[in-house]
Order: sequence, then structure tokens, then C-alpha cells
Amino acid sequence: MSLFVDFFKKKKVSHRWVFDFLPPQGVEKPFKEVIDVSWGDPHRGGMKPLTFVRQVLAACVYPQLMNDNKLPVDVRQRAQKLLDGCAGRSVGSYSATQGIPEIVQRVSEFISRRDGGVPSNPENIFLCCGSQILNVLVNAEAAFTTGVLAPAPCYRTTTLSIEGLGGVVIPYYLSEEQGWELQVEELQQALESAGGACNPIALYVINPGNPTGHVQSRKSMQEVIRFASEKRLFLLADEVYQGCIYGEKEFVSYKRVLAEMGPPLSDTVELASFHSASKGFMGECGLRGGYVELVNLDPAVKKYIYTLFTADSSAPLLGQIALDLMTNPPLPGDPSYFQFDQVRSSVKEAFEVVNSLQGFSCPAVEGGAFAFPRIHLPAKAIQKAKEVGMQPDTFYCLKLLEEAGVLVSPGSDFGQKEGTFHFRFCILILHDVLEELLRRLTLFHTQFMKDFS
Amino acid sequence: MSLFVDFFKKKKVSHRWVFDFLPPQGVEKPFKEVIDVSWGDPHRGGMKPLTFVRQVLAACVYPQLMNDNKLPVDVRQRAQKLLDGCAGRSVGSYSATQGIPEIVQRVSEFISRRDGGVPSNPENIFLCCGSQILNVLVNAEAAFTTGVLAPAPCYRTTTLSIEGLGGVVIPYYLSEEQGWELQVEELQQALESAGGACNPIALYVINPGNPTGHVQSRKSMQEVIRFASEKRLFLLADEVYQGCIYGEKEFVSYKRVLAEMGPPLSDTVELASFHSASKGFMGECGLRGGYVELVNLDPAVKKYIYTLFTADSSAPLLGQIALDLMTNPPLPGDPSYFQFDQVRSSVKEAFEVVNSLQGFSCPAVEGGAFAFPRIHLPAKAIQKAKEVGMQPDTFYCLKLLEEAGVLVSPGSDFGQKEGTFHFRFCILILHDVLEELLRRLTLFHTQFMKDFS
Repeated sequence: MSLFVDFFKKKKVSHRWVFDFLPPQGVEKPFKEVIDVSWGDPHRGGMKPLTFVRQVLAACVYPQLMNDNKLPVDVRQRAQKLLDGCAGRSVGSYSATQGIPEIVQRVSEFISRRDGGVPSNPENIFLCCGSQILNVLVNAEAAFTTGVLAPAPCYRTTTLSIEGLGGVVIPYYLSEEQGWELQVEELQQALESAGGACNPIALYVINPGNPTGHVQSRKSMQEVIRFASEKRLFLLADEVYQGCIYGEKEFVSYKRVLAEMGPPLSDTVELASFHSASKGFMGECGLRGGYVELVNLDPAVKKYIYTLFTADSSAPLLGQIALDLMTNPPLPGDPSYFQFDQVRSSVKEAFEVVNSLQGFSCPAVEGGAFAFPRIHLPAKAIQKAKEVGMQPDTFYCLKLLEEAGVLVSPGSDFGQKEGTFHFRFCILILHDVLEELLRRLTLFHTQFMKDFS
Repeated sequence: MSLFVDFFKKKKVSHRWVFDFLPPQGVEKPFKEVIDVSWGDPHRGGMKPLTFVRQVLAACVYPQLMNDNKLPVDVRQRAQKLLDGCAGRSVGSYSATQGIPEIVQRVSEFISRRDGGVPSNPENIFLCCGSQILNVLVNAEAAFTTGVLAPAPCYRTTTLSIEGLGGVVIPYYLSEEQGWELQVEELQQALESAGGACNPIALYVINPGNPTGHVQSRKSMQEVIRFASEKRLFLLADEVYQGCIYGEKEFVSYKRVLAEMGPPLSDTVELASFHSASKGFMGECGLRGGYVELVNLDPAVKKYIYTLFTADSSAPLLGQIALDLMTNPPLPGDPSYFQFDQVRSSVKEAFEVVNSLQGFSCPAVEGGAFAFPRIHLPAKAIQKAKEVGMQPDTFYCLKLLEEAGVLVSPGSDFGQKEGTFHFRFCILILHDVLEELLRRLTLFHTQFMKDFS
């Protein structure tokens, strides 16, 4: 049996496109292991969890670990403090609907620090499981189907969530020529194209971008805010990659930009800002810890949201704890103080290598966890893909998997302009793995271009 | 400030009825601490987590703990095995959509053992966050509002979930006179009362009952299955309290009863059975680990469910691990083998004391986590409650809180027959706490009856 049939059977990955096109069995492969960079999952890619984070979590789970002095003092102090906030001093209890109050408070302090002092009210913060609260928006009782503006390309989980809840995605195209910038004319055009077929109520933006790696400028965000205000759209700002910035551009939150624009906008535009412990320097996807901050919400809507969260009982307590550690990491001088910048250099290297390949172009990755290079496929390859009934980029990605053992996601999974082809791969991986990936990609791509030229 | 205003401010409990009726401040109280038995949350009530469970979780979170031999050998072996199933050997990675395949497999083996050999197919099992997958059912696109039959009394989270998703609850009354038995005539009547106002597609049952503590007989379950088949209703069996059985009656799963009824029923009735690590001997609510097994589902519906689960990324990995430990606890002879029957005797004692009080009646609690006694309130108390604009049982519960520092949930939160009054309290609590609770309740109730006679 071929190595990667085995690999997929074992892993049961959810990349359905792979299952649709399983390769012939029994063929020997020139690689020992598949490099799977199709997920935004740093630990899967070999990144090690942060010791401080795992020590605090272990001490919270099994407090007997604090009986001797083996764990650093700041680990023990933090764990004690966190357990004090848990009912029955156990991470096995439910928390209040919005989350453990002490953690909600510290998250709000983090937000305010991040936003240069813009106040954050703990009553507007809900800790949740991952960053999904889209269900808040899709009103099943509406006479018209709820429409949500979402970028193309866009991470598939977002569009799946909207559709799964009975809503409709109204795609707006990002400008690849401008490094995947969000242009407000595209929003206007998308809204017009939706016609009267649905009731557009929300605008979803993701900054830094997934899969694009683009970091939005203040100016662009101001335009988006004005547009949302004009069209009375609820602004959903997915900011889970705010901790992953590699270039010159700074991350600025929508909350901050909105506050700095002043009244009437700052008092009226409804905004939900999402963040998560799954991304950034921790990459703790499996713990499922996220939060949403709600700004300018109608009290009736907030009450409805509160009820929905009550129905969910509570977010996983260890995910809540991970959020506390993410928003309040050890400070310089603390025994567990750490720095995290090992990724920066790898990212630069990655897109330099990718851009050096014939037929590739990739704007600088400014933030986020992914690169999303464009592949200019030869006509022969496109023709061949058509013959076998595949999207051309899916065809390319499947070949890359079969022949080089590298698993990436085809651009057609994300939405892309007609006639353009891309793939996405995670860059938050170990440096050695990235090097091997780039080596395999270079070899494969050179051969592929030769075969189809 | 009064003690329990402080208590609620600090805890921010989600019991809104309490907030609606906050007592005057500054009054001295004859108790030091509020006993909060309004949740189904064993650790909150002082129950200690199981050492084996917490040791395995700690070792999975922080594998360095396995480097010395301080943890028992079966703990280390289990943790190793579980980490082998995690991508990148980290609980910080996403799992496959249905859950970690090795755990799904072991859960299916547990189900088959539990059901006397009835086969369980891992492909029908989805590990999830808690036991909520009601959203699977409420089809937002249906022309008619989706109706779900649910018992009265019923746990509020269930009805909130249905309503939050735009569905409608069609209540069927359980027979208090028959120890809260489910009678199929009530189902018929409920269905008729729904008229054409909604589209009834599912029947929700909970066994053992919450709040009732009733354990269903095989005969009753067979009737329910026949009814579901006749009316083409999807059967939702909430069986999260299957590990909490105190009386003579055995727990039998709907899956098993259905299988034993043979074709055509066993091949056609659509069933979802839920279980959770939050309840039973572990009580690990905060980890958010649950599963659902789907039986006889239409492949198209199953594909839709798969998509919804994909959109949720994955269930918390530590919750998944808790499920593995719950369904496969240590066996006799293993270093960490444990037994768990300390609760049984307390439960018996609780309802004996409750029944001895004037104006109380409570059927034997056969299973689950709660007692749900009926209070026969004096006319004067009912009158007084009306004057202050409260439900009579809410009035009673608030007095119980104000004067005895015991927080329970009023029956009007769960649905009860007109003119009957109840309250619910958790019995999965430490024996000492239960004794103190019963002492306070007895004193308070005697005085209350005197005051309003």
C-alpha cells in the first residue's frame, strides 16, 4: 500500500479533496514522511508548546504537582490564582456564562493595553470555544436569508459556519495585485451583486489575513468602518492572528481604529472582535480557547447572545486558562519569561524561496500563519487537469503530495478569481521542516514545469 | 453588603432569576457560606476529581512528568498511548473532525460492551464539546419552524438550545404520579396540540431524567421507539447520566432496546445517543468532552453533520481524552483501579429527609444528579408571591437562599403542571455538604410553613 494512503487512513484528515482523488496503491515513493502543512496547526507541524503554558496547565489539572518546589515559582503562583477563580477550585467545574470572571477581567486589561488605553468593559467579553460565534448572527427566523459579506479568498471554516447555519456568503474579492488589500469598492460591488436575494447584515474581515498573510492598514480599516456604518452592517473582525506579525506593518485592532475615529461612528458601529489561543506564539489549537469582545451592541441583541452562551454551558476551562496565559505572559524578570521570535526569519526565507521558482509569485507575508503563493500553471497542466475532472490547482497539489510528500491546500478551496491558481501552506512550522518542504517543493516544481511545458 | 449579593457579584452565576430579585443589602445572615446546589456540577459541590483522570491529563499536557517514575505505570502508559494519537504528539493540535481516531474506536468498543454486544460503528461516532449537537436538527431553511418534542419538566439548556436555533419546543408532560414516567399518550397529545404551527421532526428524551431522577423501563422505551417510528421522528436520546444509577433499575440504552426490537424498526428509526464526561463518576464538566452516536441516519444528513463538525474545527482534545478515560477506566488489578459508590448512600438519605418534611413529596431518585421534590405551598405563600410578582416556587427558593443560604433552582425554570411547585437540587455533592444542606432546609422549611400557615 502506498505510504500516504496509509497516512490518510491513519490520520483521517478532514481534507476531503484528498479522499476524492486517492492515488493508486503499491507505488514506492521517494520520501519517508508526508509533510502536512495544510492545517493552521503549529504543533502538528512540529512546533513545541511553551513550557510555561504547559506547566501552568498541568498544575491546574493536577494541583498535587505544586506540593514540591519542582515547578518555577511564577508557574505555581499563576496556577493557584487561576484555581482560585474556578468553582470548587477545580478545572472540572463549569464557569459562569461569560467565562471565569477573573480571566475575563484580565483579558479586558490586555485589550486596553493593546489598544493604547481604549477602555474595554469586561461585560462585553465572552470567552468561547475557539473563535466561532457566528451563530449569533444568523437569524433563522428572518423572512430573508441572512447574508454575510466575506472575503475571497477566505478560510473555509468561516464560510462553512455561515452556510451550516442557513446563511449565505456574499464574497468580496481581495486585490492580489495590491498584496491582497481590502478595497472598499469591492465591498460595494459585492453588496450590489447580492441584489435582493438575501438580507446582508454583517461584514466579516480577517486581519492579518488567512490565507493571504496581508496586514491591513489603518486607512483601509477606516474605510471599512465607514462602509459598515453606511450600510448598517455588523462588523465581524477576526483578529486571531494579531500576535503573528513579521514585516514592518503594525497590527492595529478594529476596536482601536473605531474608537479613534470618534463619535458618531465610535458610538454606533456594531463590532465583534475575535481572538484565540490557537494561533500566535502559543498555537494551542486543541485547547479550544477564544474570546469575543462586543462593541456598541443593542442591549436586546446582547441579551440574546448571553442566552445562547448560557445554552452552551461554558467554554472549556483549560482553553480559558490558555487565554489568560496568552494575554498575560510572564514579564521580563519572571522565572518563566520567554521570547518568541524564531519564526520571523523562517517566514522571510520561505517566501524568498517560493518567489525564486519559475511560475510562482507570492506577496510578502506580513502576518498570520500562511503563505498563499500564486502558481502560473502551463496550459498543458490546465488541460490535463480538465481531462481528469479536477480543478487545476487541486491537480497540482495532488501531484505535489504524490510525488514529493507535501500536503498543502489548493486555492480553489478558498475562493479565487477565475483563471488564477494558488495553494496555501502553513509557515508556523519548525525551521528544519520548512527547509525540507522548500527543498521538496523546488525539486517537484521544476520537474512539473518541465513535464507540462 | 449582604453576603450573597457579594457572592453573586463575585461568581456572576447565570441564574438570572436570582438577579431579578436581589435582596436588600446590609442584612446580617445566620450562615457563613451559600451552598450552591443549583448546578449539575459535582466539583463545584466539593467532589474531588479522580486522581487517575487528573494524572493522565497532566501527563498529556506536560509530558516531561513522565520522565521520572513518580506517576503510576498505567497512568504513564495511557498518556503515551493517547499522545501517540495526537498530531505532533501534542494536545495543542487539532484532531480529525470526528475526534482522535483511536479514542473514537475505544468509545465504540465501550458502547458495544455496554449494550451486550450490539455492534457500534466508529464512523457513526462524533466526539464533541459537551453534548450539544442540537443544531444538527434545526433546519433553518425549512418553510415551517422546526418542532422538537421535549419533556416538561426539562433541563433549561436543552430548551434554550432549541429556541436559540430558531426551533420550537413542543412540551410533553411526564407523569409525576408514576414517579415521572414517560407516557406515550402524552407524546400523542403534545403532537396534536402542536397542530400545524410547526414541523415536528424530533423527539428528545432524557434518561436517567434531569431534573426528575427517573430511570426509564425497557417497556416505556419500546413504546417511545414505536411512536417515533410511526410519526417519523428523529429520536434524540440524552443519556449523559447513564453512569449515575442508585436504585434497583438498570440503565438500558435506546440503541440497545432499538437493536433488540429487530427489523424493520432497528433498521429505520433514526437515533442520536449522547453521553458526556461531565456527568457520572468523573464529573469533569469544565473539560467539555462528549460524544454522539448516530444510528440509521440518512447518508445525506450524515454528510451534512460531518460538514457542521468540520466547521467547528475539533472538540477540545482534553475533553476527548476525558472521554477515553471515562469509557475505559482502569480495570481491577491495575495500579490506578478505583471504585465509585460513595454517592449511593447519600442519595437515599437525601430523599428520606426531604420526604419527612411536611408539605414535601419526592419520588425515589433512581438515577441522574438531581432530586426534584414537589412542595405543597400554603395558600398564604402563594398569595404573597403573587403580591410581589413572583412565581410561588421562585418566591420559596429566594427565601431559602436569603434565610438559609441554600441556592436551588425553582421548578418554574423547568416547566411543571399548572398549580404544582417544585425545586431542583444537585445530589452529587460531598456527604458533609449534603448533611448541612438538609439541616438548613429542614429548619427553614419548618419556619416557612409556620409563617405562612
